[in-house]
Amino acid sequence: MKLTILGCYSATPRANANPTSQVLEIGNHQFLIDCGEGTQVQLRKNKIKFARIKHIFISHLHGDHYFGLVGLISTFRLLTREADLHIYAPKGLKEVITLQMKLSDSWTNYQLIFHELTSKTSELIFEDDKVAVYTIPLEHRVYTNGFLFKEKKGERKLNIAAVENANIDKAYYSKLKQGYDVVNKSGKHITNHSVTLDAPATKSYAFCSDTSYREAIIPIIKNVNLLYHESTFLHKLAHLAEKTKHSTAKQAASIAKQAEVKQLLLGHFSSRYDDINEFKEEAEAVFENVWLAEQGKTFEI
Amino acid sequence: MKLTILGCYSATPRANANPTSQVLEIGNHQFLIDCGEGTQVQLRKNKIKFARIKHIFISHLHGDHYFGLVGLISTFRLLTREADLHIYAPKGLKEVITLQMKLSDSWTNYQLIFHELTSKTSELIFEDDKVAVYTIPLEHRVYTNGFLFKEKKGERKLNIAAVENANIDKAYYSKLKQGYDVVNKSGKHITNHSVTLDAPATKSYAFCSDTSYREAIIPIIKNVNLLYHESTFLHKLAHLAEKTKHSTAKQAASIAKQAEVKQLLLGHFSSRYDDINEFKEEAEAVFENVWLAEQGKTFEI
Repeated sequence: MKLTILGCYSATPRANANPTSQVLEIGNHQFLIDCGEGTQVQLRKNKIKFARIKHIFISHLHGDHYFGLVGLISTFRLLTREADLHIYAPKGLKEVITLQMKLSDSWTNYQLIFHELTSKTSELIFEDDKVAVYTIPLEHRVYTNGFLFKEKKGERKLNIAAVENANIDKAYYSKLKQGYDVVNKSGKHITNHSVTLDAPATKSYAFCSDTSYREAIIPIIKNVNLLYHESTFLHKLAHLAEKTKHSTAKQAASIAKQAEVKQLLLGHFSSRYDDINEFKEEAEAVFENVWLAEQGKTFEI
Repeated sequence: MKLTILGCYSATPRANANPTSQVLEIGNHQFLIDCGEGTQVQLRKNKIKFARIKHIFISHLHGDHYFGLVGLISTFRLLTREADLHIYAPKGLKEVITLQMKLSDSWTNYQLIFHELTSKTSELIFEDDKVAVYTIPLEHRVYTNGFLFKEKKGERKLNIAAVENANIDKAYYSKLKQGYDVVNKSGKHITNHSVTLDAPATKSYAFCSDTSYREAIIPIIKNVNLLYHESTFLHKLAHLAEKTKHSTAKQAASIAKQAEVKQLLLGHFSSRYDDINEFKEEAEAVFENVWLAEQGKTFEI
């Protein structure tokens, strides 16, 4: 799992301060998460192949999280894309995009499939044999979801020495990997656990932006490897965070601590702050493993 | 009159290749013409004060000419703008912007006034005591207008020596500037032309993008000081220009020549061309005074 930050600032785009967008690579997937204005240029700068993006997740319909989407959809069309594009977003986005395609008389030559989100409880929105994606209902000024990306547990591993010692026919190896007990060449019952090992630990990533301090998300993001949590403000401006339904670095760290996540990544910094290192310092007083989102930076999970 | 190019490429934005947007400064006005994705960042880079933009002209509803508008409107709101903003654009844009404001529950704190264009003949769309703006109906895949910006003729100038010699009371000077004949202190009739000079010549700028080769615009843009005419392709790809309703550099030069404009500015280059100097060479074979639009470049008219 690999996360690339395309933009990590709140509100208005400026030179070298792009609004929220991230690419999460898991196995074959390149999931695009949020898509502020200028995202397509950031994708190019970070050499991310447009054709590999097949699923886009939009947290909410504030401009700094989606104004770049219509341009990206349009560029995909100009690049004569053929693969389906799935968009997971709050209800309303389909209407915006469709209206703009109608007015420009420029319909996509590929399938554009909207998955409109309305639920206020966490739900499974994408699944294949490797990955599952769930919503994380957040609390903001408009309907907002975070997203939890979880690798699925793979097959059990054979303990080769034990398997050979137990005199098991090779035809049964795939059954063993799937967790079943088998019978060996001598007709003896062999328990699965005596000859296999647990599948490698799975990784998980939780994206939480934008939101006020919300303990209700803790059970959903419990123990994730990496938690991205917005921290628009430092705690001195907690009153402003509360008013605008954003979080402070301290609050993000408190969520990380309570959820016992492995690492915390902060972002969505307000442009009023010149030195974002203060966010790290504030969060580290509460939770020790803190990173700062930075444009163009890639985090291995 | 001063024209600053914020973006001059067609289709998809790339690093250092922004889609169409220009700022025209006339007197107190900063008119923004088209607003592709990333325009607000280009405005900042070119140090153009957001508060001075009060009129925005959108030629047509293809994304590379307006996808940056909703973000700019949103940024104006975050900057707590109070002044009215006038937008002159094809019918439909108001619906797009209003829908996005509704979905984000973010209404502007300033007045947003849409002037929706539908006419297929040239019309006066803005006028004050200094400037008049007319549409230039173009021919493209969707309803498209260019814009003609004309300084109004100012007051006549007093020929000071002649005025003093004619023994005219100073109270009549403003009448003279307005073109009237007057009576002097001795009761003698003084013709206006004997004591005044013509007002300084007025400047004019015509913006024509996007369009196929269209001679019908010639009477409208006749004799302008500067004509910006799109040249998406070189003439080798004239068949593609015809198919997509764009123009070639040669066609743009032919329009410039027939309209007897003073200077031609080429832009809206397709990203397929690495060397845009070829556009200049091709046009110069037809019309001698050719410039190339370049991002961040300012042209004095």
